[in-house]
Amino acid sequence: LPTKLPHTGTTIFTVMSALAAEHGAVNLGQGFPDFGTDPALLQAVTDAMAAGYNQYPPMTGVPALRQAVAAKLNALYGSAYDADRDITITAGGTQGLITAIHACVGAGDEVIIIEPAYDSYDPAIRLAGAVPVGVPMTLDYRLDWDAVRAAVTPRTRALVLNTPHNPSGRIATADDQRELAQIAEQHDLFVVSDEVYEHMVFDGAAHESVARHPGLRERSFLVSSFGKTFHVTGWKVGFVAAPPALSAAFRRLHQYTVFTVHTPTQHAIAAYLADPAPWQGLSGFYQAKRDAFRAAIEGTPLKLLPCEGTYFQTVDYRAVSDKTELEFARWLTTEVGVAAIPLSVFYQQPQERGHVRFCFAKRDETLAKAAQCLQALA
Amino acid sequence: LPTKLPHTGTTIFTVMSALAAEHGAVNLGQGFPDFGTDPALLQAVTDAMAAGYNQYPPMTGVPALRQAVAAKLNALYGSAYDADRDITITAGGTQGLITAIHACVGAGDEVIIIEPAYDSYDPAIRLAGAVPVGVPMTLDYRLDWDAVRAAVTPRTRALVLNTPHNPSGRIATADDQRELAQIAEQHDLFVVSDEVYEHMVFDGAAHESVARHPGLRERSFLVSSFGKTFHVTGWKVGFVAAPPALSAAFRRLHQYTVFTVHTPTQHAIAAYLADPAPWQGLSGFYQAKRDAFRAAIEGTPLKLLPCEGTYFQTVDYRAVSDKTELEFARWLTTEVGVAAIPLSVFYQQPQERGHVRFCFAKRDETLAKAAQCLQALA
Ligand SMILES: CSCCC(=O)C(=O)O
Ligand SMILES: CSCCC(=O)C(=O)O
Repeated sequence: LPTKLPHTGTTIFTVMSALAAEHGAVNLGQGFPDFGTDPALLQAVTDAMAAGYNQYPPMTGVPALRQAVAAKLNALYGSAYDADRDITITAGGTQGLITAIHACVGAGDEVIIIEPAYDSYDPAIRLAGAVPVGVPMTLDYRLDWDAVRAAVTPRTRALVLNTPHNPSGRIATADDQRELAQIAEQHDLFVVSDEVYEHMVFDGAAHESVARHPGLRERSFLVSSFGKTFHVTGWKVGFVAAPPALSAAFRRLHQYTVFTVHTPTQHAIAAYLADPAPWQGLSGFYQAKRDAFRAAIEGTPLKLLPCEGTYFQTVDYRAVSDKTELEFARWLTTEVGVAAIPLSVFYQQPQERGHVRFCFAKRDETLAKAAQCLQALA
Repeated sequence: LPTKLPHTGTTIFTVMSALAAEHGAVNLGQGFPDFGTDPALLQAVTDAMAAGYNQYPPMTGVPALRQAVAAKLNALYGSAYDADRDITITAGGTQGLITAIHACVGAGDEVIIIEPAYDSYDPAIRLAGAVPVGVPMTLDYRLDWDAVRAAVTPRTRALVLNTPHNPSGRIATADDQRELAQIAEQHDLFVVSDEVYEHMVFDGAAHESVARHPGLRERSFLVSSFGKTFHVTGWKVGFVAAPPALSAAFRRLHQYTVFTVHTPTQHAIAAYLADPAPWQGLSGFYQAKRDAFRAAIEGTPLKLLPCEGTYFQTVDYRAVSDKTELEFARWLTTEVGVAAIPLSVFYQQPQERGHVRFCFAKRDETLAKAAQCLQALA
């Protein structure tokens, strides 16, 4: 069968998780927690099922959940999203992203992605018939607005932003958002903003959502996911917030793509959002894990790069090995016993900088065990 | 925003459900049960969550569920699907359909759909850049293979089949499948087979799955859904079974479209499938409802059309009204108190035959109440 995605194979996350399982390695590759979920959230799903919420919800999502999302965004960012008109519940972040991209770009359009870029952006853009244009971050993994400006052409129609940024762990600043707003306005671009790590921002920094920035939010699809925030990556429930015309275009596709999302889980998350403590405490929770993990591998020859957000820590392994990033990640998994993700796979033209990513959304014992294995590199 | 689906509005199901709610009408429109789910299935979800199955499952689906699906299909149809290679768990039937269509057709291809056609086929095909070609059933809602043959052109690449057929309630026969196999072989077509009502076939007839027919299954995507079978339309879990090359193409798209599906629900359904009684008893369960509903409206001027499968009963209302089907369905909802679905919306060029569809997947009291309202038509 001729494929529409000639450049893609099995995602690196699946590949490395399988390799880790096969070799009994500590899996710090694919981004998911290895600890339990709040029993109150599980109970809320059980309650919703018992209450009979098992049939089709409205296409756009359960009203109580859309209201909770709109209220939270508006309180945090000073936006004015309308729950009925501007919020759509999605089958996770990936489905929100691909549908947002399809809603605003078409055949022949160019879409700027910032590299390293999460691996679903490129195929999502290609499937829309558009052309992904990779713009590298600076060597320090900061957003490079001059490079973005230089990449804009008359065919550029949208830009995909991701903050906090996977895999680098960097976050966008208020200045970044002002630069982006200026470029987007000047060239009339849409912005698809992947903010699934919105509640993991460290050292007192604020998450600079597109929703916080007038001039930007009017042209943006804000994509997020409850899977990351509530430690349930397998539940596949997220949302897209966007102004009326963008939401209308989004929903037109959404209704024929998945139509609706697991009803009892939507009710459960709506109820669970009544208490802000779980998401408000998330940055502190992960900052402690980041700090513990960094401290534990400080003595190894792995060089720690800055980590301002997400639950990923990137390291430079050049003092240890000359292998390519993919070879090093495989070797680390099979020989050292710790699975990691090579950053090279997040580029259209693989870069080799000697960088791999560890996920620290793990129990303290898991992180300690991984650190112990990594001591062998010394 | 320029839309990619200029011909589509809000689905008729959403429109009629909203109208029914607004007017307090008995909702026999959108196809979903109004009765409870087996507590054992709900408990299985609770158990899976408690067991910690809340993170990403494998991209293709939970192995135990894929194995249960393959074993069931192979036992029923004499097929030889491999659980690892040929079965993919989807976010419901709609996502399975659109992904299967995108896996086998592209820009400029023609895809035959049998009209009346479920309303997601046309937009799914258009989004793939292909052209949906509507071929009408006979006036008696039987498959018309001469009309299909006449519609095939050198650009025809696939055909979407649906049996048991929504909205007509007809089923394909073994002869139909032989005709289809012959046409598909002769013109080298793919078949996307929507079999979500596979376990609702009445009066002792057998469900003629594409999987039962060598020559057909080698070129078919079999799409089904657990939502219909287990009375949980809001859970959005289904599957696609297809031979290796087709499954490989399907998965390539699936991994960037939704990636995975609600983990605890997958585990729950895998466990629940260990007992064949629930799905084996489904045809008898719905046949009794069909018979009761038909008997209850027999005295009205609505003419009952044959119902061989699905949970839909189509009637001819010409003895009551000259209204268009859409107008009649609205009037029936607002004035008579029973919501129905006009068949005219299932055509590219609306047909007006005086036919509307009732869903009888309802409690006996609900069906009795609807029948009582419909007596007012006498
Ligand atoms: C969808 S699997 C990958 C999870 C993830 O977001 C990551 O590891 O980067
Ligand atoms: C996806 S909502 C429509 C449900 C259904 O399959 C029908 O009523 O035909």
